Amino acid sequence: MTNRQQREPKAPSRACLGVGVIGYGYWGPNIARSIATTEGCHVAAIGDASDDALARAGRMYPGAHLWKNWRDVIADPSVDAVAVVTPVRQHYEMALAALRAGKHVLVEKPMTETSAQGAALIEEADRRNLILMVDHTFVYTGAVQKIRDLVVQGIVGEVYYYDSTRINLGLFQSDVNVIWDLAVHDLSIIDFLLDDVPVAISACGADHLHGNRENMAHIVLYFSSGTIAHLNVNWLAPVKVRRTLIGGSQRMIVYDDLEPSEKVKVYDRGVDIRLAQERIHEARVSYRIGDMWAPQTSVKEALVTEIEHFVDCVANNRVPLTSGAVGLNIVSYLEYATQSLNQRGHPVELAPLRRVS
Amino acid sequence: MTNRQQREPKAPSRACLGVGVIGYGYWGPNIARSIATTEGCHVAAIGDASDDALARAGRMYPGAHLWKNWRDVIADPSVDAVAVVTPVRQHYEMALAALRAGKHVLVEKPMTETSAQGAALIEEADRRNLILMVDHTFVYTGAVQKIRDLVVQGIVGEVYYYDSTRINLGLFQSDVNVIWDLAVHDLSIIDFLLDDVPVAISACGADHLHGNRENMAHIVLYFSSGTIAHLNVNWLAPVKVRRTLIGGSQRMIVYDDLEPSEKVKVYDRGVDIRLAQERIHEARVSYRIGDMWAPQTSVKEALVTEIEHFVDCVANNRVPLTSGAVGLNIVSYLEYATQSLNQRGHPVELAPLRRVS
Amino acid sequence: MTNRQQREPKAPSRACLGVGVIGYGYWGPNIARSIATTEGCHVAAIGDASDDALARAGRMYPGAHLWKNWRDVIADPSVDAVAVVTPVRQHYEMALAALRAGKHVLVEKPMTETSAQGAALIEEADRRNLILMVDHTFVYTGAVQKIRDLVVQGIVGEVYYYDSTRINLGLFQSDVNVIWDLAVHDLSIIDFLLDDVPVAISACGADHLHGNRENMAHIVLYFSSGTIAHLNVNWLAPVKVRRTLIGGSQRMIVYDDLEPSEKVKVYDRGVDIRLAQERIHEARVSYRIGDMWAPQTSVKEALVTEIEHFVDCVANNRVPLTSGAVGLNIVSYLEYATQSLNQRGHPVELAPLRRVS
Amino acid sequence: MTNRQQREPKAPSRACLGVGVIGYGYWGPNIARSIATTEGCHVAAIGDASDDALARAGRMYPGAHLWKNWRDVIADPSVDAVAVVTPVRQHYEMALAALRAGKHVLVEKPMTETSAQGAALIEEADRRNLILMVDHTFVYTGAVQKIRDLVVQGIVGEVYYYDSTRINLGLFQSDVNVIWDLAVHDLSIIDFLLDDVPVAISACGADHLHGNRENMAHIVLYFSSGTIAHLNVNWLAPVKVRRTLIGGSQRMIVYDDLEPSEKVKVYDRGVDIRLAQERIHEARVSYRIGDMWAPQTSVKEALVTEIEHFVDCVANNRVPLTSGAVGLNIVSYLEYATQSLNQRGHPVELAPLRRVS
Repeated sequence: MTNRQQREPKAPSRACLGVGVIGYGYWGPNIARSIATTEGCHVAAIGDASDDALARAGRMYPGAHLWKNWRDVIADPSVDAVAVVTPVRQHYEMALAALRAGKHVLVEKPMTETSAQGAALIEEADRRNLILMVDHTFVYTGAVQKIRDLVVQGIVGEVYYYDSTRINLGLFQSDVNVIWDLAVHDLSIIDFLLDDVPVAISACGADHLHGNRENMAHIVLYFSSGTIAHLNVNWLAPVKVRRTLIGGSQRMIVYDDLEPSEKVKVYDRGVDIRLAQERIHEARVSYRIGDMWAPQTSVKEALVTEIEHFVDCVANNRVPLTSGAVGLNIVSYLEYATQSLNQRGHPVELAPLRRVS
Repeated sequence: MTNRQQREPKAPSRACLGVGVIGYGYWGPNIARSIATTEGCHVAAIGDASDDALARAGRMYPGAHLWKNWRDVIADPSVDAVAVVTPVRQHYEMALAALRAGKHVLVEKPMTETSAQGAALIEEADRRNLILMVDHTFVYTGAVQKIRDLVVQGIVGEVYYYDSTRINLGLFQSDVNVIWDLAVHDLSIIDFLLDDVPVAISACGADHLHGNRENMAHIVLYFSSGTIAHLNVNWLAPVKVRRTLIGGSQRMIVYDDLEPSEKVKVYDRGVDIRLAQERIHEARVSYRIGDMWAPQTSVKEALVTEIEHFVDCVANNRVPLTSGAVGLNIVSYLEYATQSLNQRGHPVELAPLRRVS
Repeated sequence: MTNRQQREPKAPSRACLGVGVIGYGYWGPNIARSIATTEGCHVAAIGDASDDALARAGRMYPGAHLWKNWRDVIADPSVDAVAVVTPVRQHYEMALAALRAGKHVLVEKPMTETSAQGAALIEEADRRNLILMVDHTFVYTGAVQKIRDLVVQGIVGEVYYYDSTRINLGLFQSDVNVIWDLAVHDLSIIDFLLDDVPVAISACGADHLHGNRENMAHIVLYFSSGTIAHLNVNWLAPVKVRRTLIGGSQRMIVYDDLEPSEKVKVYDRGVDIRLAQERIHEARVSYRIGDMWAPQTSVKEALVTEIEHFVDCVANNRVPLTSGAVGLNIVSYLEYATQSLNQRGHPVELAPLRRVS
Repeated sequence: MTNRQQREPKAPSRACLGVGVIGYGYWGPNIARSIATTEGCHVAAIGDASDDALARAGRMYPGAHLWKNWRDVIADPSVDAVAVVTPVRQHYEMALAALRAGKHVLVEKPMTETSAQGAALIEEADRRNLILMVDHTFVYTGAVQKIRDLVVQGIVGEVYYYDSTRINLGLFQSDVNVIWDLAVHDLSIIDFLLDDVPVAISACGADHLHGNRENMAHIVLYFSSGTIAHLNVNWLAPVKVRRTLIGGSQRMIVYDDLEPSEKVKVYDRGVDIRLAQERIHEARVSYRIGDMWAPQTSVKEALVTEIEHFVDCVANNRVPLTSGAVGLNIVSYLEYATQSLNQRGHPVELAPLRRVS
């Protein structure tokens, strides 16, 4: 007689992955929202030590179990997989506990504080045949995937350099410096774009506020192919910039993540040098200045693409694009960068890395 | 009976400085034009080994003497001062010859190929009481002079960092790499802005075209005060960028030289960190986000300001803002950067420098 | 024993205004979210004819009553005020019914299809001493409020012109043309900024897709003070632009709503004309080119400010900033513009309007 | 013995067109420079009533005859063609005198003050078989020529609209309003791009400084094909904008003349409306959002292209792209716009025009 609607939360089917989210501070709500939006999974439980955070979580996800103690999230029988969205220092302990409890794990970037911890997580996941995936969000953006296509298809040619500026005012992190917070994005993008490993890394930085954490840094990665990557990261900049230049022998790319549209611009520009015998050096350089082209990129939210991929990897036992092994690569780069940072930029030669992709 | 006008070139008065310009290629015509525009001096002679260049010079300056051999410019009795606008490798020989002939010298940047050459020129100029000035053009722009005012007046506060991007496609130079071509601009601006000397310099770069000259580089300068400067220079970029961020404890500046107006923007933004005892680290950081302000800067052409200054220094025996001593500072920075470049960015500690300003 | 949290929706106190939202399509969710966020009110009920929309609403607001028939929202005893967020053609009927049921009303812009309808709503609200407010969102933005301050304080001086470009691709509306969809924003901003009424309005436009609704238009308003306003609105533009220039005798403003920060820029620029006797006309014009200044504007979400204002008006029986009377002004401007549009831009003289503010 | 060079001005060959430039104020020097740069012509004489202007001219062109009286330029036997670069009010008298003296004429835009004067010049040139060309510079830019190609090749499809913003601070003209100064550029571009004639024109504007000349205006042109053009011109704007949107059924163009590169951007964007029977209107609109493409455009200076074209027309008796007939079209549009302006934007229906291209 009444057309009043039911307001029951959607009853997850058996095939629907129950995800427990540990950490509901700055980034956790975004992860939870993407889980809620994605077919094939649902927010089964949320854990946070803060009453306020739990109250907010409860208003948004009335069907989810709420826990103050993160161990209860892992123990919750409705939880099939755990998303660890806490400060870096807690990643290892929480992810390890989740794996040991037989739960798949999606862990926030950077994966761990040390590469030894990373290797231990990988080993644990492998032994139990569980999915271990790292939240390297940018790899799942339409822009970065388009750039990957352009590189793979040879449109860019030989990649000469990757030069990124990732600066803004804040947010100063409590437990990591700006490299572990911002440069990790570029490292994961570089790892995704290039089929190459760095042979040396140098980093320099400064802690202008004397808080014992660098708030600005410059990192340089030297690759075996000759590619050079430079990352400019800064928490103390007056303006927000997210701009990367990629120079190649055939094309050059400007990737500006703050552009509302046309995030990726491809320039048919370059230089040809003919190694002539003559001594009139200038004459041998010719410049190629052609069209610019901004390919349409997917506007699908990266986090949703990522969660779908996680669900697919769990369902079909696939290796994630941003697997634990990839996460370990990034952590080891961060360790080398930190080592160089402590020596004022003295470049650190890398032990031969076996690239995992 | 006719109102046909006379077309005599202006007859320079005795007080009018006769300047001989050696080198009429890319930059020489700009120097000559500025000399012609400035009261108190005139283009007395022009020298270039190229017939074409001389023909162009003759059409523009029918009153100037034209010489194929640069030594004739120096010897020309109508020449009181010489502007050396040739490739770097010729600066020392030409400037020294001019000084020995008793002529004042304005020399293109960088002053010389080595600091030993630079010191020799300074000594020669001092002995003969002649003006030796380096064409560090940016120091004479309205924008850089406004920034200098903001620094000196304490508006910026303690300078945390100087971070410059100076990239474009070309022009590949024949005899120097991108550091000696582009970074020299930033080094001269930094030297002008800061009352401080670097204690270490590192630089890394790459020669993607295998022409034996680096076409991209990153240079970092560590200053005794804690200021850190980073210069990103590149001849192989798809877009032209001339953008510098200056971070200070009180204000931050974005200086974009390609902006038609509002080249200098001053941001009342920053961070305060209260070193609290508590372990909740995030709580102690507060962000200040205030107004932005773009002061009007002089639109007078920098080269004209510079030539006027040169004429004034000659007339009144003043020390130029960009004296030989300043030029020597810059050359020594370039040498240290080159040294680091050859060691893949290994930072080079500087011998204590006596700053000259 | 367990620390599992309660997940009860917040129980609204007696003083908490229960708002019923009619229409949960494109804009309704934003209104609902702002109501949910604001202290002193809550989402009591949501009405929409679409099952899908209601299902979405239910997931977000498990505590709200859901109704397929909008009349049930109005009749719902938990509803003290009604937000009408439906297509324009339904505004009048729904708002009138709500007022007659003794409910306060917040109605989407434009208030009604005709000024007669608008007048009837005002009369009904007045008779029952109920609040009638129109959702002119831009009036509640930090940027527009800052501009209002600059105008009121005389910083701008005499307002010469208001020139707005509000263009993008889509969204083509089903029941109104681009004027009633986009120009209404500018009309409400102008009404808020200027203490003045238009004396004539002209409008021209085109329906390029032959759908019988203009997809682009230019509207000009002539004010009694001499101010001229021009609005460029377009649903068929390749890029999104939200840019307004305001020229005044003392200062000029550029307001770009798409700028992430520095939305409002104030230029100390202008022209002085000295009415000299001489015939050399050029000589009497002098240009003033001073600093630019971007005042910090509130980043508080406009809709939240607006809902807070609505709650305050209800609680304290205050006249809203965007009252029914203001909404009527705007509807009458739209009617005059439509009249002109039908005459290919022939300007329509306005009957003397009593400005209500 | 000496290698001192000759400094004779280049001796023009017989085939080299001698051009006399009347008016050496703001624009005259640019015309003269382009003549001097172009093969096949030279600056034979320069006329200006101001001694200062003549002195400047003499320094730049020592080989040119200088005259205070413009009639002497026309009478000068070394002058084969005359460039009239004076205020509009003098165009007719000077151009007519030049034609009557058997000289070809290049006249500054707008061609004349009235269309009657324009018709008289055309008749005079035709009778004497002389070239009469108008300096519509933008038609000769690489950007506009590229857009013309895109329109002609059908890339744009049916042209829906042309929407231009051409604003800045100054220069207030002495003898014409902003329409005759700035809108003339857009009118000549439109005339070049579209094979169509306007059927009605409306214009409104304001003279905020009470100098009896409108300093801002909006002009709308209605074309027989349905194309609508809108021009926003303003001498009293805080920022300089030169931006045109061209909407077509297949592609849309953004042309920004202030962009250092990528002046022309082509967007594969649009809307398809399927005229369905159903009443759910929204459902029938679909948006096409594809790639953006910035074709490389010629960077050759437009004035040089134009002067070369003038020389070619004279040498080979060709009809110029911007012939007197085209100039007359533009003047008649300006007259209609003025007529509408005097009626507060009342649209003026055009007498059927025979389009000349």
